[in-house]
Amino acid sequence: MWVQIDKISQYVDKEVTIKGWLYNIRSAGKLMFPELRDGSGLIQGVVSKKEVPESVWDDFQKLTQESSVIVTGMVSKHPKKEDVYELQINNLEIISIADPYPITPKEHGVDFLSEKRHLWLRSPRQASILRIRNEIIMAIRTYMYENDFILFDAPIFTPNACEGTSTLFETNYFDLGKAYLSQSGQLYAEAGALALGKVFTLGPTFRAENSMTRRHITEFWMMEPEMAFFDLNDNMDLIEDFLEYVVQRVVKNRKKELEFIGRDTSKLEKVMKPFPRLTYTEAVEILHKKDIPLIRKTANGEEHIRPFPWGEDFGAPHEEAIVEDFDKPVMIHRWPAGAKAFYMKRDPENPDLVLGVDVLAPEGFGEIIGGSQREDNLDLLLERIREHGLPEDEFQWYIDLRKYGSVPHSGFGLGIERIVSWLCNLEHIREAIPFARRPNRIRP
Amino acid sequence: MWVQIDKISQYVDKEVTIKGWLYNIRSAGKLMFPELRDGSGLIQGVVSKKEVPESVWDDFQKLTQESSVIVTGMVSKHPKKEDVYELQINNLEIISIADPYPITPKEHGVDFLSEKRHLWLRSPRQASILRIRNEIIMAIRTYMYENDFILFDAPIFTPNACEGTSTLFETNYFDLGKAYLSQSGQLYAEAGALALGKVFTLGPTFRAENSMTRRHITEFWMMEPEMAFFDLNDNMDLIEDFLEYVVQRVVKNRKKELEFIGRDTSKLEKVMKPFPRLTYTEAVEILHKKDIPLIRKTANGEEHIRPFPWGEDFGAPHEEAIVEDFDKPVMIHRWPAGAKAFYMKRDPENPDLVLGVDVLAPEGFGEIIGGSQREDNLDLLLERIREHGLPEDEFQWYIDLRKYGSVPHSGFGLGIERIVSWLCNLEHIREAIPFARRPNRIRP
Repeated sequence: MWVQIDKISQYVDKEVTIKGWLYNIRSAGKLMFPELRDGSGLIQGVVSKKEVPESVWDDFQKLTQESSVIVTGMVSKHPKKEDVYELQINNLEIISIADPYPITPKEHGVDFLSEKRHLWLRSPRQASILRIRNEIIMAIRTYMYENDFILFDAPIFTPNACEGTSTLFETNYFDLGKAYLSQSGQLYAEAGALALGKVFTLGPTFRAENSMTRRHITEFWMMEPEMAFFDLNDNMDLIEDFLEYVVQRVVKNRKKELEFIGRDTSKLEKVMKPFPRLTYTEAVEILHKKDIPLIRKTANGEEHIRPFPWGEDFGAPHEEAIVEDFDKPVMIHRWPAGAKAFYMKRDPENPDLVLGVDVLAPEGFGEIIGGSQREDNLDLLLERIREHGLPEDEFQWYIDLRKYGSVPHSGFGLGIERIVSWLCNLEHIREAIPFARRPNRIRP
Repeated sequence: MWVQIDKISQYVDKEVTIKGWLYNIRSAGKLMFPELRDGSGLIQGVVSKKEVPESVWDDFQKLTQESSVIVTGMVSKHPKKEDVYELQINNLEIISIADPYPITPKEHGVDFLSEKRHLWLRSPRQASILRIRNEIIMAIRTYMYENDFILFDAPIFTPNACEGTSTLFETNYFDLGKAYLSQSGQLYAEAGALALGKVFTLGPTFRAENSMTRRHITEFWMMEPEMAFFDLNDNMDLIEDFLEYVVQRVVKNRKKELEFIGRDTSKLEKVMKPFPRLTYTEAVEILHKKDIPLIRKTANGEEHIRPFPWGEDFGAPHEEAIVEDFDKPVMIHRWPAGAKAFYMKRDPENPDLVLGVDVLAPEGFGEIIGGSQREDNLDLLLERIREHGLPEDEFQWYIDLRKYGSVPHSGFGLGIERIVSWLCNLEHIREAIPFARRPNRIRP
């Protein structure tokens, strides 16, 4: 019976068949210990010269790393280790002998590994990360479905830019001129929320940003819920409830993988609501108390500005200083209007502020969510569009949403690779997606 | 208490608050019957002049179509109709009065509606279709998750074409030259299957095809599973099991919406496995029996070729003739090699055939799935790549999959908008996605 390695504990003392690849093999006299992978996990086999036909013993000696095989054997519990199983192999069918495999268990440079990403994916660490990514996305979708959000796939081809025009990928679009690849589905999701109440988008988005940081890729997935009749507080309540669900489900269902890649899951288990909520102004006060300056690049090097000036956006050192006293995601709300996008609603109690919220992950992983209540007043929205020099004509359909049944509404965007990086404790975002696209990498 | 209209049956004889929009209103003397929508459904309210404050009565008279409101009232069962509920309204808060709404309950041309898609989405028919789309995609993802498939998001930016270079959208990619928008995630999914066993992609794909049919859009979503150690028969068994699950779950959970848009659900209830399996050759025999010719456009009009020549691909009239005697999806397998893609494995029993399978939906909805066993032999794959004149260099990573642990593997692609069209009985694919992109339409 063909079984997956991750279900092997249900088959103790039974004969099973594993279809997979040889990950490693060592021999000790009349015993061989092949380690097999099948995509769902790893298992160690035991081959005893005394107990298998000679042809099976000989065939095992021919196997190279990544050769594909079908093996049959009895499942047994490891004599000493809890939750570890072995396969007492009695038969082997070779499917194909692999050429000398370029990725060996020794260390390789990351450029080499990225070049061989189609093979690097097979390494137990990379496979574990992708299984966790799968769980994260299914947790997100299950939460949305169970809470009556309707999936609203926003278009990728758009005639205009949502967040500035300098970082757009463009393509020729028949007789209609240029089309731009979507940077965010939010504006469309707003039309969706007014039609369907609560919606979410989950798809790829694109930024033509020529920056080679550990946190940026040019093609990344985003989840963007948008809710009619939600104000900023409702939005923050939702974020809290949603993140707790996702993180706790992933820890519960993928503990094995998280531990395998060395993630301290006890830190994730603390991600339970309520989360701390700070205003931007309170966050700036933390920076003042900790004496964290704003650093500006100048012609002569760097200028350190103290105290941190109210109104500036935070960089990585500021985010780290703000979150270091908390073991949960931190929600920072009510931002200076100058630092944020045109569609955010002004705070009725202070017109210098917008009703935006950013969520910083703990442990210094930075912003994972950005959200806001949206401007629902027709005249104020028009004013913002003009202030930002956006093409009013192209936004006519978006403006319509304020003419026909405008309601208070809010939403947020979650970067999928950002949350994968946080939950997997990745140093570099390139491991968070099967084939990361960066300014210098489009292959394979 | 704020409740959604689709959950109203749980609140009979209770006071609830609905937040939504006025869809329609009629009055009869001292009664008014506003029809409200909130994205989850429609409900009729009853306002009695005797029983509400004068200001509420007056406010209702101010409401225009699509004005946004918060109403409170008691839920009651409709005196005559089963499963229908009403709201005995006692209070109204006006959020905003809508400008004269361009989409009235009368008929509009489809160009006008497409131009106003951001508002057209609010019509009960369009909202129902999107709720069904949501259910279809969640059913697909649940099936995949429960059956141990790992989500494997394939890249959108690719350096080469999977199915021909004539229908590619391209964009400038920094110093690396051109990037092309993915037409299929399959080749990447094959790398995924060899790393993770069973994977699937589900994302947007792009075809720059300048054709204005009822079945084509330039940006469409595809689900592509890929399985190591699956042959063509395993692939067909999976397709059958998968489609039955998806269709039956959608009929069960979204019966109300399906009936609202006029779908005959009894036809969908018949979609239970096993499905008929015909070889291509058997399908051609059906065409011969029914005397369906191949129609070729010529300079002078049309040429009708009888009998249908073996080796040609099927068009709509052929698909319709083949499926009309069946009330289930029909799987057609073992296709002439000349009609199919380079990566399909040849039939070991007949080298003129490939181990491909197309699934035709019943009721004349045409192809919804195309799949195959993949060529896993290194030399034969190289031969195919050369025959098709594909750039061997760009395919090196794909060729690697046959050098390092090649295994029999199979997969298929399901067009999301195709299955939405079938299950919703749509005449035109543009209704199957929030904002359809066609050669003449990129706005809004």
